[in-house]
Formats: sequence, C-alpha cells, structure tokens
Amino acid sequence: MKIVLLGYGNVAAHLVHAFQAHPQTEVVQIFSRSSVNEEGLPPVTNDLNQLKEADVYIIAISDNAIKEFSRSLPLQGQLVVHTSGSVSIKSLSAKNRRGIFYPLQTFSRGRSVDFSTVPICIEAVQDGDQQLLMELAGFISENVVAIDSKQRRTLHLAAVYVNNFTNHLYQVSEEILAQRDLDFSLLRPLILETAGKMESLPPGEAQTGPAVRKDDKTIKKHLKLLRNKQHKNIYKVLTKSIQRNHGKKL
Amino acid sequence: MKIVLLGYGNVAAHLVHAFQAHPQTEVVQIFSRSSVNEEGLPPVTNDLNQLKEADVYIIAISDNAIKEFSRSLPLQGQLVVHTSGSVSIKSLSAKNRRGIFYPLQTFSRGRSVDFSTVPICIEAVQDGDQQLLMELAGFISENVVAIDSKQRRTLHLAAVYVNNFTNHLYQVSEEILAQRDLDFSLLRPLILETAGKMESLPPGEAQTGPAVRKDDKTIKKHLKLLRNKQHKNIYKVLTKSIQRNHGKKL
Repeated sequence: MKIVLLGYGNVAAHLVHAFQAHPQTEVVQIFSRSSVNEEGLPPVTNDLNQLKEADVYIIAISDNAIKEFSRSLPLQGQLVVHTSGSVSIKSLSAKNRRGIFYPLQTFSRGRSVDFSTVPICIEAVQDGDQQLLMELAGFISENVVAIDSKQRRTLHLAAVYVNNFTNHLYQVSEEILAQRDLDFSLLRPLILETAGKMESLPPGEAQTGPAVRKDDKTIKKHLKLLRNKQHKNIYKVLTKSIQRNHGKKL
Repeated sequence: MKIVLLGYGNVAAHLVHAFQAHPQTEVVQIFSRSSVNEEGLPPVTNDLNQLKEADVYIIAISDNAIKEFSRSLPLQGQLVVHTSGSVSIKSLSAKNRRGIFYPLQTFSRGRSVDFSTVPICIEAVQDGDQQLLMELAGFISENVVAIDSKQRRTLHLAAVYVNNFTNHLYQVSEEILAQRDLDFSLLRPLILETAGKMESLPPGEAQTGPAVRKDDKTIKKHLKLLRNKQHKNIYKVLTKSIQRNHGKKL
C-alpha cells in the first residue's frame, strides 16, 4: 500500500517509521513546508503540485489547519484522511474520499513508540475505504477499531484527562517537591506503577489515599501545607470528586 | 539482619517477599491480628507477648493506628520503625529507638513490585540506627534516601497528586467513555506512555493538549460535551492551572 504523508510533525514522524518497518506499506513521499534533515526518509517535497500517486494521503498537521489544507490539495477522488482526535470527518474537503486514521497515543520526538499496541481509530464515508484503512492500520497495530466521529470526540476528551491533566498533576507535584529541595525523580517509580495498575485493576478499585479513606485529619494537614492557590484548588476539587464517587457506591 | 513485621497488609506482604528474596535479611516473625493463609511465610503470631528477638521491628499498619500500637508494644530499647509517609517519627513511643522505613510506592495484592527501583526513605533519631536502616534498605533497593519528617510529609503530599489524584482522573475518563459505550482499555497505552515520558522529559516540557495550546475552541467544545458537574469542574480547574503555569513562562 502506497502512502503519502502530508506534514512532518511528531505524529507523522512516528507513522513514517512504523510504515517503513512493515514490508506491505510504503511511504512514497512526505510533504513538508519546512525542510527535513533526517536520513533514511522517503523523498520530501514542499510543492503540493508534485504530489505522487498513492492509495492513501494522510494529513498529519495541527488540528486547526486541517480544514483549509484539505481544500488546498490538488487532488480529486483520492482517499484523504487525517489523524486528529477532535476534528470531524466533515472538515475534510468533499472533493476527495474522506477518512480518519487516529492513533490514540501521545508522541514525542526522541521517544520511540511500540505501534503494535497503539489503538488506531478508523472512520470512512465509503465501506471500501473503511476496509482499506482497517487493513492499513492492521499492518502496524494489533489494536484497530472502527469508531464514528462522535465516539472519537468522546475518546479525545477522555484522553485529555489521562494525558494532559495527568501530566499537569506531575508538574504540580514537581513544584511541591521543589519547595523542599526534593527531586522529582523520587516519584518516578510511583508514577509508573500508578499507570501500570490500570493493566490489571479498574480505576475505581485501585483508588487509595486520604480522600477515599475519608481521612479528614490528613486532608486538613495537606491543605495547610499547600501554599500555592492553584495546588490547593486542585487538591480540593479532586478530593471532593473522589469522595462523591466513592460515597455513591456505598 | 533479623526483622519482625508488625501487621500484614499490602505494604508488609510486599516487604516480606522482598526481604525473603535477599540472603542477608531474614523475617523471623510476622505479627498479625487476623489469620494469614499463605504458604512459605515466616511464623505468624497474634500475641504481642510472643514477639521474637530482632534487629528491627517494622510497624506496617494503617496510619491512624500507629501511635497507639507503638505504645502497646511490650518492647524496650529496640529499634521500632514505621512505614508511613504521613505519620511523624514522634508518633512512635519513645520507650524504643525510633525510625522510619518508608517505601515510596503503591502496593496492591496480586501485583508484584520490583523493589530495587523503589525509593526507600529513611529517618532515625540515632546515627547508628540510621546507618542500620540505610543498610537494611540497601539490601532490597538501589534507591535509598535519608529524609527528615518534614520532607517526608512533602513527599507524601506530592505522591497524593501523582498517585491518588491521577488514579481518579483515570476513573473520570472511564466514566466519560462509558457514556458512549467505549472501553477504558483503549486508553491503556496512552496512560502508560504519559507516565513513561517522565523517565526522559520534565513534566513542564511534556505538557500537550488544548489548555497549553490555548485552543479555546476545543476547550469550549469539551465543556459542552461534559454532562457531569464534577467532570466539568475538574476540567476547568486543571485547564486554568495549566494555562497559568505556562503563561508564567512566556
């Protein structure tokens, strides 16, 4: 299967590596406005009029640029998909066959990702295109799901909690430790195990800590220790939410 | 080194296994009020008057029971430590030599923990005891630190954010997905990678998502999608805190 990658940010870079590692997929070209200095890549162009023939064109650019960019493509009747969790399939120009190829993962430069476990969420307007995209995704991942735009939106929203918000809690804890010259690295094994537990326990059962124990003494001590208003606010809101959740169950 | 474990909850069970795996440490006895049905364990007693001789007595019971329990021990001049992150060393009865042996990790039944990476936080009143505890911890972990009660309190508070609060965000996301019949397992690879990033990136640099991008359009869409008041509240507070943090840096 021949693929053209449109854009070369984090998602695109990781996709190119995943496709290159598989014999049945070939990235025939990368379109990138900025120059790409990397070895072992497919040909890179910065001219949309030079786009090669491919089975799938994958737009991997920032969410708010997708709509306009898809209109600017000099393609007609081709399968054009994007990789965003939050942009509707309808944002893509109708002059091409539209689809979604959304890898539900966070990608950073310099960290390799095992694509075989990454859920890839597929959507297409035509059945044949959906089959083709499922097959393409199946080459690089063992976790391919067909979901519609509404479900994808919900998935993306849930991902904000476990990724963006969780990461912010990491930062808050780093700030709290810094006040007493304690190193954030002390928390790393705990961070990994908290995430690792989700492999075998539902989050409701894994919940521990003063909030779920209704240990008001410790909660009061903690609130007294916290100097930063935002930190305090987060502590209160999450403690209240934990207690409400676990109160309900009794 | 001979150890008596006082209590047999999650922390104690994991400690016993770690000590048993090391040739230079021996758990000579476990004290437990409730009966313990497990094979390959050291002798278990439920009678405090039958406690054996040991170099260290480790109290691993719930936080709010430590003070009274340490007073009830029929020991004098022995090294008695507890494993809690939030209880002061002064809560231990002064009739014995007091110390802290706090493994900074979350322990669940049925999940084995690699103790070699777990930070063990040591505190003692006497220098000799501190050395002994550092040595004992060093047998099972490569990550032993001496920290005082104030630092330990701060560490425990920070741990609440990365463990208890993070786990609650997992639960919130599970609830959000359930509304559209989506399975929580879809988020597992993302959860693991969000945590895994902390091995190589500081949380401030790893921050992504609509809040840090100041993508008001997506934020508004998300708030509209959220029906649950608590979920909405958490979204707002964390988004505000992310934006405040990252605004500061500009």
